[in-house]
Amino acid sequence: QWTLLDWKPKKPDMLVDTFGFGGIIQDGMVFRQNFIIRSYEIGADRTASIETLMNHLQETALNHVKTAGLLGDGFGATPEMSKRNLIWVVSKIQLLVEKYPLWEDTVQVDTWVAAAGKNGMRRDWHVLDCKSGCTILRATSVWVMMNKNTRRLSKMPDEVRAEIGPYFNARAAITDEQSEKLAKPGSTAGGDAMKQFMRKGLTPRWWGDLDVNQHVNNVKYIGWILESAPIAILEKHELASMTLDYRKECGRDSVLQSLTTVAGECVDGDTDSTIQCDHLLQLETGADIVKAHTEWRPKRAHGEGTPMGGFPAESA
Amino acid sequence: QWTLLDWKPKKPDMLVDTFGFGGIIQDGMVFRQNFIIRSYEIGADRTASIETLMNHLQETALNHVKTAGLLGDGFGATPEMSKRNLIWVVSKIQLLVEKYPLWEDTVQVDTWVAAAGKNGMRRDWHVLDCKSGCTILRATSVWVMMNKNTRRLSKMPDEVRAEIGPYFNARAAITDEQSEKLAKPGSTAGGDAMKQFMRKGLTPRWWGDLDVNQHVNNVKYIGWILESAPIAILEKHELASMTLDYRKECGRDSVLQSLTTVAGECVDGDTDSTIQCDHLLQLETGADIVKAHTEWRPKRAHGEGTPMGGFPAESA
Repeated sequence: QWTLLDWKPKKPDMLVDTFGFGGIIQDGMVFRQNFIIRSYEIGADRTASIETLMNHLQETALNHVKTAGLLGDGFGATPEMSKRNLIWVVSKIQLLVEKYPLWEDTVQVDTWVAAAGKNGMRRDWHVLDCKSGCTILRATSVWVMMNKNTRRLSKMPDEVRAEIGPYFNARAAITDEQSEKLAKPGSTAGGDAMKQFMRKGLTPRWWGDLDVNQHVNNVKYIGWILESAPIAILEKHELASMTLDYRKECGRDSVLQSLTTVAGECVDGDTDSTIQCDHLLQLETGADIVKAHTEWRPKRAHGEGTPMGGFPAESA
Repeated sequence: QWTLLDWKPKKPDMLVDTFGFGGIIQDGMVFRQNFIIRSYEIGADRTASIETLMNHLQETALNHVKTAGLLGDGFGATPEMSKRNLIWVVSKIQLLVEKYPLWEDTVQVDTWVAAAGKNGMRRDWHVLDCKSGCTILRATSVWVMMNKNTRRLSKMPDEVRAEIGPYFNARAAITDEQSEKLAKPGSTAGGDAMKQFMRKGLTPRWWGDLDVNQHVNNVKYIGWILESAPIAILEKHELASMTLDYRKECGRDSVLQSLTTVAGECVDGDTDSTIQCDHLLQLETGADIVKAHTEWRPKRAHGEGTPMGGFPAESA
């Protein structure tokens, strides 16, 4: 339970502190960082929110690039990319969550990169519960390069490949078989009993949702996607997997609408089976920003041995 | 710059890791925890948001209570409080921010408690930049006890005083003189050139804004208060101080409206002087939830030596 004194590096090849910035292991092929789930990173059920988990993924990706000495002047661009005004843009993220960590759990995030086709880079993550060793989530993502001035996609220059190629690691967090099973956005369409939900008028909050380039951070999209999911699903189910296809950037003045289509007859959430949802986040003027597919499973009972206690709005 | 290897306890009386859970120092009278500002805790200007800073305050308060062995079954309630169904509720928070930390800065949060009148507890915080030693913020708060069933305020039972009394520390983060200077909510009323701004229809997001008791977390209120502040102020100014008076709880089905009154002629934000704002967060049905007063100063230029680089919505 007490992790207070647990600050010694556990493995001789781990160069760094247990809860700080993280460090490179396995001859540089994997970056590892631990996080304690904090009181403000949990939701009403005491588990970390999906946004918290994705924030930890983003954090380790950036720290990996930085620790490898490959951080140029941006948020993940390498020096050779910065010279050419190239930036990374994510085109796809797939997440498989096995178990949500609880308040004060310590999670270990491993991340690494690989080639994705000729011009892309894959970044994978594997997150473990430090105490039990159980998998918390597996995730994979595909990144391509964009010229930040023209906003057009770019081939990967040889100089960039030379920078990042030595870090490519063939290990895959999500197997091809697992990936095949993850339904694609749009796959619930055409079902018999579908219901649609919409939330309009979504806008970035200036002081928190924008990144240093005044664009909306990709984790923020998850929140907007969930804004249109029926509360009955959110309450009684947990997100088991998610596929996100990023289509277009979104900036500080964008006004978005979020659409969720629920497949099957499980719309009021009273079900013991998995629920499938399709999501579409688009500008109110029409352009698609993100298409997503989510699967939800009935929530497992957490912490029966832990009295919940009471605390109100203002406490903490 | 590199904090990677900096994981050894610096002081012999500090029992714990530098970036983990934190620990008690000064014979138990102060709890100290370090935080590295993470990539997802910063805004468009690369500085930590006010919500990030307040999250760190909440986290250290809970970890202090826990490390002292005084955590009952709630989110900060002591065992004697839990026996009596008592919970802490915050009635007031005052914050003075001297400087906003940047991405990757390490901050050191010290927190301690003191008596507040006969039945209350004061909790203070002093946050430093670890590298420069400069103050980041000073904060103080007042807490009282509420019966979680009747929702009525309670006197402090002697048994609770016996639990927490030994930790009372006379040190004050904000002096009486500084506190006097902080304008009170409502103090801009009656000025000559005032403008009012309103944002309606604010609701908690089920999966992120509620705490384990399905009440809205107090840090969330800051976001709602800022929802009605004009973007010109948010862009060109930084929050220098804030006084929050908490009046009433707010739950998962509440619909709120946020009102901001800006004093003076600085409404479009083009000013080199301090801006004063009054804020009111209320249920759309009328009851006041939080009254607040904020002071804003022109933003200091950050990171001129740090090329900003480009990255879009999707990057990171």
